[in-house]
Amino acid sequence: MSIYKIIREMAYEANMELPRLNLVLFTFGNVSAADRDEGVFAIKPSGVPYKDLSPEKMVIVDFEGNTVEGTLRPSSDTQTHAVLYKHWDGINGIVHTHSTYATAWAQAQMDVPIFGTTHADHLTVDVPCAPPMNDEMIKGNYEYETGFQIINHFKELGYSHHDVEMILVGNHAPFTWGKTAEKAVYNSAVLESVAQMALLTNQINPQSPKLKEALIKKHFERKHGPDSYYGQ
Amino acid sequence: MSIYKIIREMAYEANMELPRLNLVLFTFGNVSAADRDEGVFAIKPSGVPYKDLSPEKMVIVDFEGNTVEGTLRPSSDTQTHAVLYKHWDGINGIVHTHSTYATAWAQAQMDVPIFGTTHADHLTVDVPCAPPMNDEMIKGNYEYETGFQIINHFKELGYSHHDVEMILVGNHAPFTWGKTAEKAVYNSAVLESVAQMALLTNQINPQSPKLKEALIKKHFERKHGPDSYYGQ
Amino acid sequence: MSIYKIIREMAYEANMELPRLNLVLFTFGNVSAADRDEGVFAIKPSGVPYKDLSPEKMVIVDFEGNTVEGTLRPSSDTQTHAVLYKHWDGINGIVHTHSTYATAWAQAQMDVPIFGTTHADHLTVDVPCAPPMNDEMIKGNYEYETGFQIINHFKELGYSHHDVEMILVGNHAPFTWGKTAEKAVYNSAVLESVAQMALLTNQINPQSPKLKEALIKKHFERKHGPDSYYGQ
Amino acid sequence: MSIYKIIREMAYEANMELPRLNLVLFTFGNVSAADRDEGVFAIKPSGVPYKDLSPEKMVIVDFEGNTVEGTLRPSSDTQTHAVLYKHWDGINGIVHTHSTYATAWAQAQMDVPIFGTTHADHLTVDVPCAPPMNDEMIKGNYEYETGFQIINHFKELGYSHHDVEMILVGNHAPFTWGKTAEKAVYNSAVLESVAQMALLTNQINPQSPKLKEALIKKHFERKHGPDSYYGQ
Repeated sequence: MSIYKIIREMAYEANMELPRLNLVLFTFGNVSAADRDEGVFAIKPSGVPYKDLSPEKMVIVDFEGNTVEGTLRPSSDTQTHAVLYKHWDGINGIVHTHSTYATAWAQAQMDVPIFGTTHADHLTVDVPCAPPMNDEMIKGNYEYETGFQIINHFKELGYSHHDVEMILVGNHAPFTWGKTAEKAVYNSAVLESVAQMALLTNQINPQSPKLKEALIKKHFERKHGPDSYYGQ
Repeated sequence: MSIYKIIREMAYEANMELPRLNLVLFTFGNVSAADRDEGVFAIKPSGVPYKDLSPEKMVIVDFEGNTVEGTLRPSSDTQTHAVLYKHWDGINGIVHTHSTYATAWAQAQMDVPIFGTTHADHLTVDVPCAPPMNDEMIKGNYEYETGFQIINHFKELGYSHHDVEMILVGNHAPFTWGKTAEKAVYNSAVLESVAQMALLTNQINPQSPKLKEALIKKHFERKHGPDSYYGQ
Repeated sequence: MSIYKIIREMAYEANMELPRLNLVLFTFGNVSAADRDEGVFAIKPSGVPYKDLSPEKMVIVDFEGNTVEGTLRPSSDTQTHAVLYKHWDGINGIVHTHSTYATAWAQAQMDVPIFGTTHADHLTVDVPCAPPMNDEMIKGNYEYETGFQIINHFKELGYSHHDVEMILVGNHAPFTWGKTAEKAVYNSAVLESVAQMALLTNQINPQSPKLKEALIKKHFERKHGPDSYYGQ
Repeated sequence: MSIYKIIREMAYEANMELPRLNLVLFTFGNVSAADRDEGVFAIKPSGVPYKDLSPEKMVIVDFEGNTVEGTLRPSSDTQTHAVLYKHWDGINGIVHTHSTYATAWAQAQMDVPIFGTTHADHLTVDVPCAPPMNDEMIKGNYEYETGFQIINHFKELGYSHHDVEMILVGNHAPFTWGKTAEKAVYNSAVLESVAQMALLTNQINPQSPKLKEALIKKHFERKHGPDSYYGQ
């Protein structure tokens, strides 16, 4: 039995959640699940319909982006996943989708403003939108450079990937991550909901103020940190 | 057999209606059902997925917010429910959701204007939006103070909680209530529908007039009061 | 066996289509099916959830609005149906809903402009919006007067109810009709779709021109009249 | 056994995908599947509900638009399909829908701008919108002329139907095509998604820039051409 059985199953289950949560059309999304002890992650094969997936079809890839096990070609976004796993500690799941509202904000090249407690329950800042990559990066190893575009934008903003688990890549679409693949998928669904509500909020009142600091702090700390009291 | 069996089942059934009516993502909502003779209410445990709920998992809490029966931690919004039950007579169900359109109006910090008969069938005024709480209230016993923010906004407006069974809390999300938990859930669904139609109405015609007084009165009295003739 | 068995079943089936087509929330809609030989129609009882309906629960009412058979109270909109059946020949089905987009146009008190062939396949003019009724009509026999508000608006516009099978009542919601209850439900779904697309069209291009005369004529005649060639 | 069995089944399966993908209301859409060796295509019969379709009910039509086999009347849009098959080599599937967002862009008579990689994964230019036809064409053989309107607009733009597999017909609705009927349906779903995201992008930021050339090239070549690396 493969030593990668567990991450294959975690990646499979997490990928299957994307269509259930209405986050993908056809094959426009992928999830990976990492095993840091083995230095590998399981990822969706490229272009295979969700209904044809199985744990066995997940491809095992190392953090340099080399396929370790599996006969199918891994997701075309595999290098982005590899770069993030290699450079960011503590994350064991990554998701990329083209979900409708989050992608619209990425296309508009704008951060999703923090307008309410739904947003603050998950992060204390606007959802950042990295600028589109420069032409050299695009013409080179595009997916590999996409990983660095994400990492560099976080560096510029002074954000930690432990505190903020989602980003928009300008002109492209969202990436999310988390301690598990399941948590990363959860973050993708939260982002899509927050992105839709932010658009509607602006439509109702173009002068909508952002959430005040005290509420941001309160709601984030309800769910995170030493004094959290949400959940069991 | 627990003397709280009936409210446990009522709270369970009402909570399960929220995902069926597309009013919640994941666990972002909660319903309680009160037994005024016993001075307690049953409420959803915090952060437990809807598919894992059962009547037995509902937590029994008194009107001071103390847990009376149950091993799980009650909803993080429990203190808000307790305050409303304690200070407002005649309500036996309370619902809190982050439903998309109602939350967008709360984030925009605007009342939902009464534009049509769908709205007037249920209340005769705009759906009120309470302002965000002040920093002292937020830093203190936040959920407890949220209950008073709701009560105080109704006092300022001169509204009775018997006549108006819904409110938006600015920057946050909606609360609804009613004579039963089932009715409170019904009100949450009505609010979401009315909130969506009001946004669309403004988009079609930014000068849309509010509903005229005679229609407000007529539609409300069709469904409520001594001369009502809607239903069996 | 009741001589009304057929219209009971037609009304039942047509009512059950409303939730399947996402045209109603809870009980916010009703369909009737008429038997002109008997001078009666079958209509949904008031406020009964769709899941609890059956053909036997449909109420039989004559064209004066009097209940002829049935123990339940008929829909609160029954008088509107009665007036339309009495004054308009050739229609055997009427539908009233509060479907989201059509109701938003009614609340905005604006006709739905004819922007495309989807619209022209069904009618050659903007979907008319009758103005809100005057206070005397509202305070009087409201639902009865609603029927006349519809009939009078058609008279003013010079429209025939045979050519145009739908209307918005300002501040309220849509009514549709047809040769059968099934056709009237079809018209409600078409109206909702056309209303949504018209709003989106205006959002994409606020200067969108209306459909040109030659296309209106062509598309309508593809589906209607002596030279129609749509369908079997 | 009919020599047309395979295209009947392909056309049937592809037609049935339209309601599953939420691209049609009632019968407002049609798919054909061509057999170029036989010089014919199978197409949906006119006005038959999707639930009543079967492979046997598909109508076999030649590239001049004459029915070759089948007792039902073919889709009213059959002549458009025939013209496209006759004049454009290499396409074996054509789809026409009135899907909500794509139709709204067609009604607004505007191209769908290329705002992101979801779009560039499928085509490198804005989705073109052909102008409404002139009155002579409409009054003449309308559906036949619709085919030429599409072909002529591509000629004017200098586009190849191999590179761009979708178009909007102004005031009307979208047409898509592809190497198979299945691929043509896929294109209709992609178009609807891209059309929705483009509208939302403009709403978030009316000054949203179009996708830069390097990203257009990169994403298109990921999925198409000799160096593509998407899929298996």
